[in-house]
Amino acid sequence: MYDLLKELRVVEGSAFVAAPTCGLYLAQMGAEVIRFDQIGGGPDFRRWPLAENGSSLYWEGLNKGKKSIALNLSSPEGRQIAQRLATAPDPAGGRDAGLFVTNFPVDGFLSYETLQKLRSDLICVRVMGWADGSQGMDYTINAALGLPQMTGPADDPRPVNHVLAAWDLLTGAYCAFTLVSALLARMRTGEGREIRAPLSDIGAATMANLGFAAETQLAGQQRPRMGNDIFGAFGRDFRTGDGQTLMLLAITPKQWSKALEVLDLSGEVAALEAELGISFAVDEGLRFTHRARLYPLFERAFAGRTAAELAPAFDAGGVTWGAYQPMEAALADPRLYKDNPAFETVRHPSGLSYPAPGAMATIPQDVRGRVRPAPRLGENTDEILAEVLDMSAGEIGRLHDAGVVAGADGR
Amino acid sequence: MYDLLKELRVVEGSAFVAAPTCGLYLAQMGAEVIRFDQIGGGPDFRRWPLAENGSSLYWEGLNKGKKSIALNLSSPEGRQIAQRLATAPDPAGGRDAGLFVTNFPVDGFLSYETLQKLRSDLICVRVMGWADGSQGMDYTINAALGLPQMTGPADDPRPVNHVLAAWDLLTGAYCAFTLVSALLARMRTGEGREIRAPLSDIGAATMANLGFAAETQLAGQQRPRMGNDIFGAFGRDFRTGDGQTLMLLAITPKQWSKALEVLDLSGEVAALEAELGISFAVDEGLRFTHRARLYPLFERAFAGRTAAELAPAFDAGGVTWGAYQPMEAALADPRLYKDNPAFETVRHPSGLSYPAPGAMATIPQDVRGRVRPAPRLGENTDEILAEVLDMSAGEIGRLHDAGVVAGADGR
Repeated sequence: MYDLLKELRVVEGSAFVAAPTCGLYLAQMGAEVIRFDQIGGGPDFRRWPLAENGSSLYWEGLNKGKKSIALNLSSPEGRQIAQRLATAPDPAGGRDAGLFVTNFPVDGFLSYETLQKLRSDLICVRVMGWADGSQGMDYTINAALGLPQMTGPADDPRPVNHVLAAWDLLTGAYCAFTLVSALLARMRTGEGREIRAPLSDIGAATMANLGFAAETQLAGQQRPRMGNDIFGAFGRDFRTGDGQTLMLLAITPKQWSKALEVLDLSGEVAALEAELGISFAVDEGLRFTHRARLYPLFERAFAGRTAAELAPAFDAGGVTWGAYQPMEAALADPRLYKDNPAFETVRHPSGLSYPAPGAMATIPQDVRGRVRPAPRLGENTDEILAEVLDMSAGEIGRLHDAGVVAGADGR
Repeated sequence: MYDLLKELRVVEGSAFVAAPTCGLYLAQMGAEVIRFDQIGGGPDFRRWPLAENGSSLYWEGLNKGKKSIALNLSSPEGRQIAQRLATAPDPAGGRDAGLFVTNFPVDGFLSYETLQKLRSDLICVRVMGWADGSQGMDYTINAALGLPQMTGPADDPRPVNHVLAAWDLLTGAYCAFTLVSALLARMRTGEGREIRAPLSDIGAATMANLGFAAETQLAGQQRPRMGNDIFGAFGRDFRTGDGQTLMLLAITPKQWSKALEVLDLSGEVAALEAELGISFAVDEGLRFTHRARLYPLFERAFAGRTAAELAPAFDAGGVTWGAYQPMEAALADPRLYKDNPAFETVRHPSGLSYPAPGAMATIPQDVRGRVRPAPRLGENTDEILAEVLDMSAGEIGRLHDAGVVAGADGR
């Protein structure tokens, strides 16, 4: 972790991916992030993949570096504690609180209207499904956007969902951005605000930002599926002579000329250019339009060599390429996991020790602090009640006895 | 747009998706974002999809609300102007500059070392491919992470690339977050920094954050591909009697019970639970383990009804579901595009008028400002040279004559 945000205290009431990654990114940049959960765990506490002892590798991956307090959120007193945490005053020393990240419903006990009565300058970033408040998750929003029908081999009409929860992830990072932006504004004006980030709007806006929406509007129908072909330029997966699959792409003129050079295709491509009366060098779109003519040349060139021959030649020649590798190979890849200084082996709440990443960006001039594992559920309950809500030991004991709060032992 | 960041001036030297979306998100939250490009356009200026007149719908989607200056970046003087823009002093009125977003190479003329000599407290957020500086793009990083082999129907071994550039998008939003975070830190300490955001680290960290990496390490191999089945819970696409495809999912106990209720499957599922001696209600993982037994029940239930029957029943019953729809249907969907208040029809540099989104989040208490289209390339060249670099009209004229800068007319 880094300490850019060490003056922030953020409260997170969340589940699943989007809101938890927002808190994760904030924590890994130095913010104190307090996540509250239902005693026994919220709806994401047992999400797969699981360790052998049943602990969720997913939960402990998404909550690294946070503090945990467990509350009975179906009791009025537990809900009140959640409200008080979200709206607690700034701690001493010029630190900023009143920063709340959540995916709780817009009109429930954690509504902005309710919370603002407790702290008028609250900043609340709220992940939502559909913008109208109705249920939506990454899977259903993605289906509504048209992407699964554009994804996968052209010869198979079945819709293909993405495995990576891309909308959740984008939403989480965008929420972290909006939270810090709203804090900057509050530092200047004193005003808080609610920021609503529905997956549906983030999906619709992104498809428009990338040109998909305008393209569909102009064409009257969405882009047809085309397997792994890179739209509007040159690129695809190719098989080497020894049966490896490599991704090759050429968008810029330089990427194109380098690929032709190393694959020894300049002559054949020049002949094709002469035949068609066009130049592939300048206009990447022509490489796409005529890809059915180009692919056989590349297929033959790949088939005539092994991956072991091509890899160093591509690297030496400055070609933009990559091998498809299963994740077990990725774990052994020094560039991704094995020797990656962003990762550190730590012991997690599951009891397992394995490498985990800190902040996803690197600041060369700053020292990367230790990677902090996720808390056990309720690990920081007492400390948070005492420090943030200024409760006495007696009061905290009463809350435990009444089942309103619980520690890491579940009581 | 909103004005949370109206006190920021950000300079962007970028191409493709990640760095431009970072600038886009900043601009749509009110920052002044100045993008410099090569005269005639950088490598992304003609990226597909294109309008009929050849304008890039992609470029004009990703650069909304920015200002544009066109420079000859292969000339020493053009490069010097880029350096001076990135490091220009704060404008009057307490506004913050010295904020630079780029995907230019780490060791080129826009290296942090070079720029820091011109402004010691510069904040530079740099999108990279691989962390070691070697070439990598969304497509090749994704191939290296193992995702394409986990994606798509289980009966087809071909790797499936994602169509949505998810790593670029996540990187762009994360960069916007780190830029504002670094500004907060600079406001407190006066120190700037370089923040490097390689797609490779963002990919590797994300796969670890979600538990994929630990899962693979424990199992010795990555998750097998399983089509559209939701891993570790219940969910998949199902065909209705009239041939529509709907996504249904049930992660929480409530989502599960609602789905059974509306599909009238409670009895059959209870019989299966009795036979297996388990409860699907409590443990979503069991629904996944025994999905081969559950799917036929759901397939029959869907096949026995039309989408028109199921949709209102699902909505009324609180089921988490969604229809797969092509993008042309999404455009007509009032929840996504048609009546979405985040969108506004504006005239774009292509000359076309079509709906475009502002900020992806909504702030109920603030007024959404007008959606601003992308600039024409070089549209703001003179204004930027005069205002940011304090150049005289004579000096600006000389730069045009020498071909160092160009306006929207390309000269």
